Amino acid sequence: MHLQIFATGGTLDKVYYDALSDYRIGEPMATDILEEGRVDFTFTVASLIKKDSLELTDADRALVRARVEACPHRHIVVTHGTDTMTETAAALAGIAGKVIVFTGAMQPARFRNSDAAFNLGLAVGAVQSLPEGIYIAMSGRIFEADHVRKNREAGRFESTTDAPNQENP
Amino acid sequence: MHLQIFATGGTLDKVYYDALSDYRIGEPMATDILEEGRVDFTFTVASLIKKDSLELTDADRALVRARVEACPHRHIVVTHGTDTMTETAAALAGIAGKVIVFTGAMQPARFRNSDAAFNLGLAVGAVQSLPEGIYIAMSGRIFEADHVRKNREAGRFESTTDAPNQENP
Amino acid sequence: MHLQIFATGGTLDKVYYDALSDYRIGEPMATDILEEGRVDFTFTVASLIKKDSLELTDADRALVRARVEACPHRHIVVTHGTDTMTETAAALAGIAGKVIVFTGAMQPARFRNSDAAFNLGLAVGAVQSLPEGIYIAMSGRIFEADHVRKNREAGRFESTTDAPNQENP
Amino acid sequence: MHLQIFATGGTLDKVYYDALSDYRIGEPMATDILEEGRVDFTFTVASLIKKDSLELTDADRALVRARVEACPHRHIVVTHGTDTMTETAAALAGIAGKVIVFTGAMQPARFRNSDAAFNLGLAVGAVQSLPEGIYIAMSGRIFEADHVRKNREAGRFESTTDAPNQENP
Repeated sequence: MHLQIFATGGTLDKVYYDALSDYRIGEPMATDILEEGRVDFTFTVASLIKKDSLELTDADRALVRARVEACPHRHIVVTHGTDTMTETAAALAGIAGKVIVFTGAMQPARFRNSDAAFNLGLAVGAVQSLPEGIYIAMSGRIFEADHVRKNREAGRFESTTDAPNQENP
Repeated sequence: MHLQIFATGGTLDKVYYDALSDYRIGEPMATDILEEGRVDFTFTVASLIKKDSLELTDADRALVRARVEACPHRHIVVTHGTDTMTETAAALAGIAGKVIVFTGAMQPARFRNSDAAFNLGLAVGAVQSLPEGIYIAMSGRIFEADHVRKNREAGRFESTTDAPNQENP
Repeated sequence: MHLQIFATGGTLDKVYYDALSDYRIGEPMATDILEEGRVDFTFTVASLIKKDSLELTDADRALVRARVEACPHRHIVVTHGTDTMTETAAALAGIAGKVIVFTGAMQPARFRNSDAAFNLGLAVGAVQSLPEGIYIAMSGRIFEADHVRKNREAGRFESTTDAPNQENP
Repeated sequence: MHLQIFATGGTLDKVYYDALSDYRIGEPMATDILEEGRVDFTFTVASLIKKDSLELTDADRALVRARVEACPHRHIVVTHGTDTMTETAAALAGIAGKVIVFTGAMQPARFRNSDAAFNLGLAVGAVQSLPEGIYIAMSGRIFEADHVRKNREAGRFESTTDAPNQENP
């Protein structure tokens, strides 16, 4: 497996610039996390966009789609802000022959306590185990991309198809 | 999905006891890592053994097998020292109806730079994506448990079936 | 020694609120840092203000002065944003009988890589070693509060009295 | 101020070698901590010994003394294991014209939660604030080296001159 990572910004990559007293999107943290995870496969990380996902435009999503379609590799992880992750995933609908997994973080990877490393591991575990398709790896779960939403108040991703009163969750 | 975690010790759970100037196996770190990963599924963590995996006995492995067989849940992750992870996995051979994923760490989870959170994410991504069977999630990869070995010198897990001279790895 | 800490906000205490995709001032991190530092003296932490230091008003500074004057303890550390730390220190001029040390951080204490714990240690080392007065502990150095400025471009504090060409710095 | 650091080993510098399933003394962490602390003074770090402090010999202590005496700088911090820190400090008795501060850690600096950065900050704050002499900076306090002992059971350093029943500690 060769893993292609496309970084599009979001909380996962946020850094703090003291000179501006501001947080911005920094360089992709995926490289650091994969090295710390001591992965034994080849990978490339391409930084496509550095934005909060609420600021992503149709043009940004067209760029992501074009780069994913042009990618010669089967295994793709997209790091993305959580607020519009499902929208960008929807913009990739119909791309065949690839396993595409989106992930991100609720807390910046540079924090001492962050979900970033766990989430990227989750995505890497899923991308090599699943058939072709588009998935979202968040909240410790793997969702099909068209059956998941972010519950902003609860701070988690949840299935849109889970029966609310099911007996055996 | 309800996830059952069985902790058996190993580097992942090592702590440093200053009073003894020594490292020992502490309480399972899986709980902390899953909480930091903000997982949205129920899980239980049972601490079965607290040993370096080189010290595990046949009786220890029989205990792990008995607990896995008796577990009512389909999804099981076993945290384990890396040196004999494949031996304990072999001791579970033939257990049907479950997805069992072993993982561990090369550096203690309590370190600032550790593969522990990434590896547990990897295992959680795999356990819910794969058919029943026994797997090892290390080095960023998911291996079938009977086709993998630890390369101690290189500090990684590698497949025993990868063709050494293959053209397109 | 009993140590009184007054927290006034600043980068040191910044947290990331995913629900708002925003950074705000959180609860004082001084308590966590002192516990992690395993200090063996009694201390109290009072959170006076939660602001970026650029937003502090004259009323805020009057509050800090009033609380410091009313404090029965000799040893006081003020955690503060770095941009106007020297202004608040100047607002305390003339308070006698106390050792008052300001400190803060360039990176939030919640980051994996932060100057926060080191800086608070620096302040605690200084507050118990120096005669009464008002000091700033930043950039690894202890400055008298009326002879220091923040060099925002360089991201450090520097003395206003160091001779620029001195032979033996 | 130019700061000379002499590293002699101890918990502060411990690393975990997975290939040996063992902890050893690694390269001095003081450099990393001072850089993370964004210090604005020049410093040099010399690694003299890499041992648990219980293993230090008279010859080791003679080496530390020789190097401290030969050091042209006034400000010296010695990082040292905690168990025999006071013995090595005693071996430096009578060295004049220098401020010498010992510090160390109860938990390795490479841990996510460690007293190492705080303690080194404490030592750096003390070394530039105190008159010449030999001091120990641990447990958040600055002790004169000949009036302190490690209380191994309690995991802290304590003064040998504090009155045990004093009313106002």
